[in-house]
Amino acid sequence: QYSSGVRKVTLIPGHGIGPEITVAVQKIFEAAKVPIEWDEVDVTAVRGPDGKMGIPQKAIDSVNANKIGLKGPLMTPIGKGYRSLNLALRKEFDLYANVRPCKSMEGIKTLYENVDVVTVRENTEGEYSGIEHEIVDGVVQSIKLITEEASMRVAEFAFVFAKENNRKKVTAVHKANIMRMSDGLFLRCCRDVANKYRDIKFEERYLDTVCLNMVQDPALFDVLVMPNLYGDIMSDLCSGLVGGLGLTPSGNIGKNGALFESVHGTAPDIAGKDLANPTALLLSAIMMLRHLKLHEHADRIQGAVYAVLREGKHLTGDLGGTGKCSEYTNAIISKFN
Amino acid sequence: QYSSGVRKVTLIPGHGIGPEITVAVQKIFEAAKVPIEWDEVDVTAVRGPDGKMGIPQKAIDSVNANKIGLKGPLMTPIGKGYRSLNLALRKEFDLYANVRPCKSMEGIKTLYENVDVVTVRENTEGEYSGIEHEIVDGVVQSIKLITEEASMRVAEFAFVFAKENNRKKVTAVHKANIMRMSDGLFLRCCRDVANKYRDIKFEERYLDTVCLNMVQDPALFDVLVMPNLYGDIMSDLCSGLVGGLGLTPSGNIGKNGALFESVHGTAPDIAGKDLANPTALLLSAIMMLRHLKLHEHADRIQGAVYAVLREGKHLTGDLGGTGKCSEYTNAIISKFN
Ligand SMILES: CC(C)[C@H](C(=O)O)[C@@H](O)C(=O)O
Ligand SMILES: CC(C)[C@H](C(=O)O)[C@@H](O)C(=O)O
Repeated sequence: QYSSGVRKVTLIPGHGIGPEITVAVQKIFEAAKVPIEWDEVDVTAVRGPDGKMGIPQKAIDSVNANKIGLKGPLMTPIGKGYRSLNLALRKEFDLYANVRPCKSMEGIKTLYENVDVVTVRENTEGEYSGIEHEIVDGVVQSIKLITEEASMRVAEFAFVFAKENNRKKVTAVHKANIMRMSDGLFLRCCRDVANKYRDIKFEERYLDTVCLNMVQDPALFDVLVMPNLYGDIMSDLCSGLVGGLGLTPSGNIGKNGALFESVHGTAPDIAGKDLANPTALLLSAIMMLRHLKLHEHADRIQGAVYAVLREGKHLTGDLGGTGKCSEYTNAIISKFN
Repeated sequence: QYSSGVRKVTLIPGHGIGPEITVAVQKIFEAAKVPIEWDEVDVTAVRGPDGKMGIPQKAIDSVNANKIGLKGPLMTPIGKGYRSLNLALRKEFDLYANVRPCKSMEGIKTLYENVDVVTVRENTEGEYSGIEHEIVDGVVQSIKLITEEASMRVAEFAFVFAKENNRKKVTAVHKANIMRMSDGLFLRCCRDVANKYRDIKFEERYLDTVCLNMVQDPALFDVLVMPNLYGDIMSDLCSGLVGGLGLTPSGNIGKNGALFESVHGTAPDIAGKDLANPTALLLSAIMMLRHLKLHEHADRIQGAVYAVLREGKHLTGDLGGTGKCSEYTNAIISKFN
């Protein structure tokens, strides 16, 4: 399946600006002669046999067959009976680790320099269990579920990721001083796994402390691993340090599949106007290439993106430029010659 | 009780650097002729009738009598049967709102300028309920408890605080897209209260989005109100923007009492060496003066602290200076003449 032949990848353009940033990625991949064939599917919610709105079967079948996908932003209709389609996808394919690298890029001016952190987020349970009850009128409980199984596999993932990517340190982020049993279990799993990877430094830090230290000195951190909600927060915080969700990639990895996605919104206000920034989806697609061990293609395209950002001539409006999505795309493609 | 006479205040110096920063505050208050009499008590954990370690009865009686206290950092011994004494105090006196203002100060150089936000944190329930179970081996649940009562009172607190302090906006921070029932209830309470305060702008934002926006542009925010854990995180994040826990005050407010505290650690490594920075405790004490409506004293002392920080001549080691705690203290006092 990871042969040198052409690899089939499920492509979910999504909604709003999704289609146009997807086209940008497709054009760039084509110009770079990436050996990928796209299997495009729509993921607009449809009503399933259980009466609930969900992912169309065709999309599920495609991901199940290809085991790898690239996805633009999805709009979840608001209202009862709707769950976030983003979450539904993570759940459907048991994509248990969410990886979000945040790295400062030349040409993208923020308050920070040399940020280079990767958050690894448990992606299937925790505060996202969906189990809630109204005990009596005006008293609600939500259940945070932590299992040894899910904690072990995400901890293992974090260390393997660190090892494969020449990272030096893994920090487990927790509030085991408050949630002694649940975060305590998560932490014990991280410690167990850390013991197997003695060449990678391991440390444990409180979530609040990490937030404080991160905004003061991001160089303190390298790879971070944590339960679901903490990862949701921390990955956005880190993304903010390097320019925001328009510039940071995301990968959801499971045992039997992986889905790479931009995590910004659908930006309906600028949709269809050739104004969107495709960088987050493109960097996600590059993460996908690395997952497929197509490192040369990944390096080449990444080099082109970084060069165009550094030169700053064709930046899109969100980055303070006046470039159109298509101009930015063509500027990247022009680097291949 | 809020008369012009001398007001009795419980004083809990705490552990580590606690006693020396407490002395600093006492000296400054004395020099400024603040009409306060300190009722000093020790809060080292003692074994109670139930066999558990907890707050000494004498301390409880003092706070119950005075209804107001100032507290340095407490060390919670690690081990089974110990709960955080900080949390125990908040619980014992039902101090339901935790207020933490974070404001940029001249002389304190950080990456940010003009930060001026106040986090109002629900302080009694949420993820801090302490209710956890191991369902089966390797499967743990922690319960996040949200009640209408606690949500209403903290929302009310946030709006009253905003009104009294000439603040323009309250942002409710939540993840009601995930915890629809619990955070949903919290959010509905905020909306209800917001309807009563039409002159204060109200907005709702996702926690992850607020983290991202906060590190990019803190000026987007004013007063923030949120459930317990979110407040724990957000207040530390904001503190990091303006210099850290050594410089930011905290107040825990209840119906029948209020406790002001520095939230940094006990720093045992520098304890007793006249090296500690008393600013966080001092600013907490100034918050306390405002709570007691002693605004003139508060303004005068605050002006002196800000002047000494701005001049930068007597800063303590944590701020890159070489000043001793006592020198810094005397520099503040010298401003009163
Ligand atoms: C859209 C939302 C449900 C999602 C989450 O909370 O995980 C998003 O914030 C993310 O980080 O992918
Ligand atoms: C010490 C700890 C229990 C406490 C908390 O989690 O609330 C601290 O982080 C705080 O913010 O006061």
